[in-house]
Amino acid sequence: MPYISFESGQLTAEQKKQLIERLTKTAAEILHIPEPFFTVTIKELPDENFGIGGRSIDEIKRNYKP
Amino acid sequence: MPYISFESGQLTAEQKKQLIERLTKTAAEILHIPEPFFTVTIKELPDENFGIGGRSIDEIKRNYKP
Amino acid sequence: MPYISFESGQLTAEQKKQLIERLTKTAAEILHIPEPFFTVTIKELPDENFGIGGRSIDEIKRNYKP
Amino acid sequence: MPYISFESGQLTAEQKKQLIERLTKTAAEILHIPEPFFTVTIKELPDENFGIGGRSIDEIKRNYKP
Amino acid sequence: MPYISFESGQLTAEQKKQLIERLTKTAAEILHIPEPFFTVTIKELPDENFGIGGRSIDEIKRNYKP
Amino acid sequence: MPYISFESGQLTAEQKKQLIERLTKTAAEILHIPEPFFTVTIKELPDENFGIGGRSIDEIKRNYKP
Repeated sequence: MPYISFESGQLTAEQKKQLIERLTKTAAEILHIPEPFFTVTIKELPDENFGIGGRSIDEIKRNYKP
Repeated sequence: MPYISFESGQLTAEQKKQLIERLTKTAAEILHIPEPFFTVTIKELPDENFGIGGRSIDEIKRNYKP
Repeated sequence: MPYISFESGQLTAEQKKQLIERLTKTAAEILHIPEPFFTVTIKELPDENFGIGGRSIDEIKRNYKP
Repeated sequence: MPYISFESGQLTAEQKKQLIERLTKTAAEILHIPEPFFTVTIKELPDENFGIGGRSIDEIKRNYKP
Repeated sequence: MPYISFESGQLTAEQKKQLIERLTKTAAEILHIPEPFFTVTIKELPDENFGIGGRSIDEIKRNYKP
Repeated sequence: MPYISFESGQLTAEQKKQLIERLTKTAAEILHIPEPFFTVTIKELPDENFGIGGRSIDEIKRNYKP
């Protein structure tokens, strides 16, 4: 019954598969609760909708000059 | 002012209308708080982004052989 | 597998029991998904931590003169 | 490290930029924690998925006769 | 009807009052939606329950040697 | 900048330490994003506030006869 919510930018199908599989496995080991009781939801947000330190990821990427 | 967040797979317009109407009505009765004070948000997630027991709904459906 | 998160002020044990039972039943009917697949979590917040229109419930109650 | 989640209807790019910038600035001043430690996420929901008082924003708009 | 959820460590009553008041005011200005439509919830978490970079705030504070 | 929210029943200090450390490590490997950018929050809920299939964990435990 534990519930894991994951928020990030866009992910590939394989990354989402891996997240669901391995976050569940990891948490099940730590809590000693069987894997079938775990729920994972993944929310993919556009770069414009995710901000760090007052600036969006979109803005950070556009201003990044390596 | 109570707040209800609902997460599931894709829903029809009618299902969303019903959820907002009936979850609000039900909760208002239990809490004795008038309906206008309730907020409901519905987050529809793709099958790839919702996992149970370490596997996505997408994967569960593909491997299901009735 | 649908997930319902409920946020409000303090509730009685009976109100929480009713919320879990009846929100699940209502949503299961609307989605045509069996009840065992539903998860409900209830977050009870102090009046100081819940704000409407820029004022906390605590403040609204203190300034209310019937 | 504080985390702000913002849920509303559709927003313009400029509104999202302003929300990330100014909610972070405001909270940083109040908490005396430097801005780089703040995360903001914005979830834009369709009018059908947001309900107030048991009716969706979509329904409220359609029935509104000024 | 926009909804703001704020998660951080423990706060003073005055900080919570300020957050509710000023985050609402700021967001109302940006969205051109009147303040009464905004909800703010504040979740205060113990230092053990908040992690950055794989370590809890509790652990970071204990290992900090200025 | 990815954000992980974990909801469950009561946990030990060691379990919370492990969750923060290992969920971060696992997700960082899958996303190829360095660990310092990850935030984890853990919400521990009383058994009365967590429901599965329309019944609280509290109720399930009380009715469980092995």
